[in-house]
Amino acid sequence: MTKIAHLAPMEWKFSQRAEQLKSSMIREILKITQRPEVISFAGGLPAADTFPVDRMRAAFDSVLANSGKSALQYGPTDGYLPLRAFIADSLSSSDVKIAPEQVLMVSGSQQGLDLLGKVLLDEGSKALVESPSYLGALQAFSVYRPEFVSVGMDAHGLIPAEVAAKGTGARLLYCLPNFQNPTGLTLSESRRQELVETCAKMGIPLLEDDPYGALCYRGQPMSKMLNLNPDGVIYMGSFSKVLTPGIRLGYVVAPLPLIRKLEQAKQATDLHTAQLTQMAVYEVVKDGFLDQHIPTIRSLYASQCDVMLTALSKFFPAGVSWTKPDGGMFIWVTLPQHIDSMALSAEAIANNVAFVPGVPFYAGTPQTNTLRLSFVTVSPERIYEGIEKLGKIIASKM
Amino acid sequence: MTKIAHLAPMEWKFSQRAEQLKSSMIREILKITQRPEVISFAGGLPAADTFPVDRMRAAFDSVLANSGKSALQYGPTDGYLPLRAFIADSLSSSDVKIAPEQVLMVSGSQQGLDLLGKVLLDEGSKALVESPSYLGALQAFSVYRPEFVSVGMDAHGLIPAEVAAKGTGARLLYCLPNFQNPTGLTLSESRRQELVETCAKMGIPLLEDDPYGALCYRGQPMSKMLNLNPDGVIYMGSFSKVLTPGIRLGYVVAPLPLIRKLEQAKQATDLHTAQLTQMAVYEVVKDGFLDQHIPTIRSLYASQCDVMLTALSKFFPAGVSWTKPDGGMFIWVTLPQHIDSMALSAEAIANNVAFVPGVPFYAGTPQTNTLRLSFVTVSPERIYEGIEKLGKIIASKM
Repeated sequence: MTKIAHLAPMEWKFSQRAEQLKSSMIREILKITQRPEVISFAGGLPAADTFPVDRMRAAFDSVLANSGKSALQYGPTDGYLPLRAFIADSLSSSDVKIAPEQVLMVSGSQQGLDLLGKVLLDEGSKALVESPSYLGALQAFSVYRPEFVSVGMDAHGLIPAEVAAKGTGARLLYCLPNFQNPTGLTLSESRRQELVETCAKMGIPLLEDDPYGALCYRGQPMSKMLNLNPDGVIYMGSFSKVLTPGIRLGYVVAPLPLIRKLEQAKQATDLHTAQLTQMAVYEVVKDGFLDQHIPTIRSLYASQCDVMLTALSKFFPAGVSWTKPDGGMFIWVTLPQHIDSMALSAEAIANNVAFVPGVPFYAGTPQTNTLRLSFVTVSPERIYEGIEKLGKIIASKM
Repeated sequence: MTKIAHLAPMEWKFSQRAEQLKSSMIREILKITQRPEVISFAGGLPAADTFPVDRMRAAFDSVLANSGKSALQYGPTDGYLPLRAFIADSLSSSDVKIAPEQVLMVSGSQQGLDLLGKVLLDEGSKALVESPSYLGALQAFSVYRPEFVSVGMDAHGLIPAEVAAKGTGARLLYCLPNFQNPTGLTLSESRRQELVETCAKMGIPLLEDDPYGALCYRGQPMSKMLNLNPDGVIYMGSFSKVLTPGIRLGYVVAPLPLIRKLEQAKQATDLHTAQLTQMAVYEVVKDGFLDQHIPTIRSLYASQCDVMLTALSKFFPAGVSWTKPDGGMFIWVTLPQHIDSMALSAEAIANNVAFVPGVPFYAGTPQTNTLRLSFVTVSPERIYEGIEKLGKIIASKM
């Protein structure tokens, strides 16, 4: 049959939660900055040169050669057990044993955020977030229409006293303790202890999102809050920054009552994460490959971070400050109060330099004089060149 | 640091939507029926013997060899453009051209259902569903807490007059027109026309879920409702039943205002579906492989369907009726009113035969004397043996 003529046109009516969805500003900027002449510090991508392509290729091939039918069939919602056991082992400490049953495999940690919002947040529920916070988490949670409450940060990370002051009745505290996106800040060891105690006392589930923890360039890695209180902390990890992001593979670790609920939500959401991907990643990581591989990523990113810090010191005018991250992918810049980084972004893009303005990272009142720089996908020469250009544009506003 | 002692235990508080989530009865039955001695008609899995493992293996290998870095990097939320264009072409008809921009790649069509619920349904929104309907759709939508309104079916499928009578203000009509899960029924050509016209007149978005459409054993394939009214119909397809399900790859086709909203929701949900998987599937399908491959699946399933229909005629007592599907994977059995298929299921499992009772497929009042049989993963001999056993158990209740 052919198309039916003269039908009434459809007027689409969206749900209230959908009406407030918008496309991420970062994705919009990324579209502009794909021109090769643009020096882009805007990305949140890891450097593709670090991807172990040959190993991944061998792993996919081996899984499909040896277990093709089961790898391609529907799989369990909770995930591929050997990989869950590997993750549980890697997160266990001397006195805290994480069980494989506490690990739910998800399609990237973004999905973990969505599932946690689904399962923990009602409309109007209080959700505590760092100020600023990871944009993707704000997006994922905002679909469930919580009341966001911003918790302040200083050089030692999130301030636990603010949680105590503002957190009564909160259904979730979202925290990115290591080399935070967007600030690069790390939560200090004593603050971790204090935060865990505060959340436990107040009955607030503490979500520890840790995509960058393994990318530590200086000093000792800090304790995982999961290991300080495995009964009250939800931990999220990902293979995106230590292996490759495009396979979409992450995990949520939580106490059993919550993990069972998350598993039911995952089943209703997409049944399960691809078994083939999980089996291939297990093949890659099972014999300790990450122990050799991660140091090579660290050493590349650490040197680029140093180049950017040096360039910032040299080219940015007095009155501008920035964080000195001990790991991760980002530096956070604070301009003098009167400079709006949105307007600056337009001018920078016209001069072929890109960054992400700070505004979208705030759930509450934004600091309009902030911006995020990524140093991981740009060569040292181009970092130098781009920061010099950007410094000149900023200097012209002082 | 070590675990902090004497912390208050966490009392988990879930969202209202999470409180009503439960694990699918089918998944629970499947766990029991993995014992090899059980003849299981309960599964919804395609037969793994139909998976083109070698082709998939060659495709993954070729993509990783030639485009490894881009296949493993973050990708666009809407999906891999060549695959979207392939799908758009395959769904275009002589007078309706589907554009690649109208195709959103999703992580299995279950994710399409979740995203559509997210974007179209508010709490209390009216959602029209067939009675019975696909359990996974009821699960996906129920998270958004709509008011389900059941639409009756007869041998020609869903009854459009019931939509006209009950549908005022509905935000969605969910319909599985070809070889429906669970009933195996097909919506007749004239009903398709009537349904499209009714929905357009009433302003109801019509969701055409079509995972089984290509598995047509008898007669001519029917028109896609998408091609009758591309401005008012949302079409969902999947590679699960024609290639392999474990890769989690499906698609939603919709008018642009809706597809843009779905893309924003997808971004907040899991950023994007694995680029590697999409590129590998494109590699497999781009030169017409499905045209040779699907007939082999059809011929296997058609012969097993015939065996089951023959066995049912031979072994099931008078007073029991069943559908005669023209395609797909399922036969729907109606027992005499007094036989409860839940109780029957327990007895059957004790006798090493499994099926899915009809109750979970109903959004409204269930018909407790119904059950679903799948014929695709069981050999002809075992189909015969299992139906004979089941027939005896049913006969003992007459």
